[in-house]
Amino acid sequence: MSAERDGGGPDLRHHGDAEVRGAAGLIDLAVNVRANTPPVWLKRHLAASLDGLAAYPDGRAARAAVAARHGVTPDRVLLTSGAAEAFVLLARALKVRQPVVVHPQFTEPEAALRDAGHAVGRVLLREEDGFRLSGATVPEGADLVVIGNPTNPTSVLHPSASIAALARPGRFLVVDEAFMDAVPGEREALADRTDVPGLVVLRSLTKTWGLAGLRIGYVLSDPETIATLAGAQPLWPVSSPALAAAEACVAPAALAEASAAALRIAADRAHLLAGLREFAPFGVRAVEPAEGPFVLLRAPGATALRDRLRERGFALRRGDTFPGLGEEWLRVAVRDAGTTDRLLAAVRGALGR
Amino acid sequence: MSAERDGGGPDLRHHGDAEVRGAAGLIDLAVNVRANTPPVWLKRHLAASLDGLAAYPDGRAARAAVAARHGVTPDRVLLTSGAAEAFVLLARALKVRQPVVVHPQFTEPEAALRDAGHAVGRVLLREEDGFRLSGATVPEGADLVVIGNPTNPTSVLHPSASIAALARPGRFLVVDEAFMDAVPGEREALADRTDVPGLVVLRSLTKTWGLAGLRIGYVLSDPETIATLAGAQPLWPVSSPALAAAEACVAPAALAEASAAALRIAADRAHLLAGLREFAPFGVRAVEPAEGPFVLLRAPGATALRDRLRERGFALRRGDTFPGLGEEWLRVAVRDAGTTDRLLAAVRGALGR
Repeated sequence: MSAERDGGGPDLRHHGDAEVRGAAGLIDLAVNVRANTPPVWLKRHLAASLDGLAAYPDGRAARAAVAARHGVTPDRVLLTSGAAEAFVLLARALKVRQPVVVHPQFTEPEAALRDAGHAVGRVLLREEDGFRLSGATVPEGADLVVIGNPTNPTSVLHPSASIAALARPGRFLVVDEAFMDAVPGEREALADRTDVPGLVVLRSLTKTWGLAGLRIGYVLSDPETIATLAGAQPLWPVSSPALAAAEACVAPAALAEASAAALRIAADRAHLLAGLREFAPFGVRAVEPAEGPFVLLRAPGATALRDRLRERGFALRRGDTFPGLGEEWLRVAVRDAGTTDRLLAAVRGALGR
Repeated sequence: MSAERDGGGPDLRHHGDAEVRGAAGLIDLAVNVRANTPPVWLKRHLAASLDGLAAYPDGRAARAAVAARHGVTPDRVLLTSGAAEAFVLLARALKVRQPVVVHPQFTEPEAALRDAGHAVGRVLLREEDGFRLSGATVPEGADLVVIGNPTNPTSVLHPSASIAALARPGRFLVVDEAFMDAVPGEREALADRTDVPGLVVLRSLTKTWGLAGLRIGYVLSDPETIATLAGAQPLWPVSSPALAAAEACVAPAALAEASAAALRIAADRAHLLAGLREFAPFGVRAVEPAEGPFVLLRAPGATALRDRLRERGFALRRGDTFPGLGEEWLRVAVRDAGTTDRLLAAVRGALGR
């Protein structure tokens, strides 16, 4: 791999939200939050929760609801102030000596591990392997392994068996399933599994439900690990509106809505991928099969292309801040067919066709 | 001092919210959140902020607003997920060897320091000194000193000069001003001061505005210390509704409302203290002068009294979990005169008069 920048590698603290800040009117294809969210019913539910704000948060009902949704006991669940807090807790509270992150992947886990003073090893999945696990070697001595599934930004969905095969005695196997609820049937999910030693699964409600501003996520693991992580949290770590959201978003009606959204995303993604094939003669190529609500593109002159698309009103996510990728990479959020058609027209214009 | 329990001292993780959980119908005098909050205008403002939840939080406007409220530059302000997060950040991010907490005081700072692996020294203010600083000796070698002003649970307001006199080169002087906005004119506040070396002031919006469920507070200090603390925060540490609240609650209209509330609290507290004097023959005695929105009581048989008041519908805060106090202590929130009169009648009944 060749893509890391001089001077210490990519900026792990760059996130898609920086690409749309202060740019009103841009169509945001840089951030992976589902469009038109939060839904009206959820906003109403949250507004009603404001009446109880004077009381300190009590997370017990939300914790029980999340546990029931995954068929586990509440002592296997930790509610966190977004997945970002979970990464910090993992980095600080777990006693590990050789953490390893499988890249390209969301950069925050590595950033949090480094901030906590760890030297972090990298396993770089390769483009020629389709960014899949085949061939990649996780060091046997790694006592904490972080992998995303489906993976941001590659949109690769690893087989759950391949991930579970990474488990070892004395190793924490951290699987970031932040986008798993966008996969129809949550195929390859490990969240409900209690038979994989050292398994730690992270889940987010941010992307599917449009709650990026609310800070809510959760961790599933064995009771001992959950207790260790909880011990590193501040008092009252999750706000009452976030707890109300968690409880509501794991209810059966919400799960049904998420399932329907996952199917719609799959159809919208197929439309996007089909449209992008028109640009193959220009060297534009998507990583396929893509299974997340975003697509990773390789395009010659990606930086200039991104600038020209920005002039045309579309914000795409740069790929060069992900370890293992370089300046020729872009990430595009999956949107409805109409938005995608307008994007494709803009790409056509940007490429000078 | 004699009040610490066997087996390792008081439970530092006991908080007033535990005293009213699962007890619907109890009049809550255990938690120090202002009654009838959040106000309707603030709830409306927060409800409106829910429309923007799909975007990741952007704290810049709130940070600037808080800075302006205290007449300092934004690089002297850190927004936190409640004061509880601030205590954890201080405990983890500051390089100190000899932290000391001035007790009796809110227990979370010491608990957070201990959780971070510190041995924590205690300076115990004495009842015979009216729990004032006079006579108490902070060890010269202490490189972090935590003190509350006004102090929870004693309701003592220390002169700002006495606190500033605790500053030393190489020492962090942490002043928890969570209840300072309930003091008319914010007399003795250090929040706006930039001339005290090592000063770190914590502020809360929880109590005055009824936002305990929202998790919002802030730290004021020199830019270097603020940057150190910020580096230990997770990404997006404060939710968008909490940011919206912070911005609204430091606006001039809100400050005027808080000032008016502080005057009302002073009048209500005077009514409570006058009423309590009726029970002096039973050995019931309040710590005076009290300057916070709560009063600390010494009462023989306080545990039984608390149980009998609970039967009569009033939840008071036990005092024995505060280092330096014992089973004969209770903390009572200041409420409106009508509520106080009902409490006084209940005390009368409980004492068998």
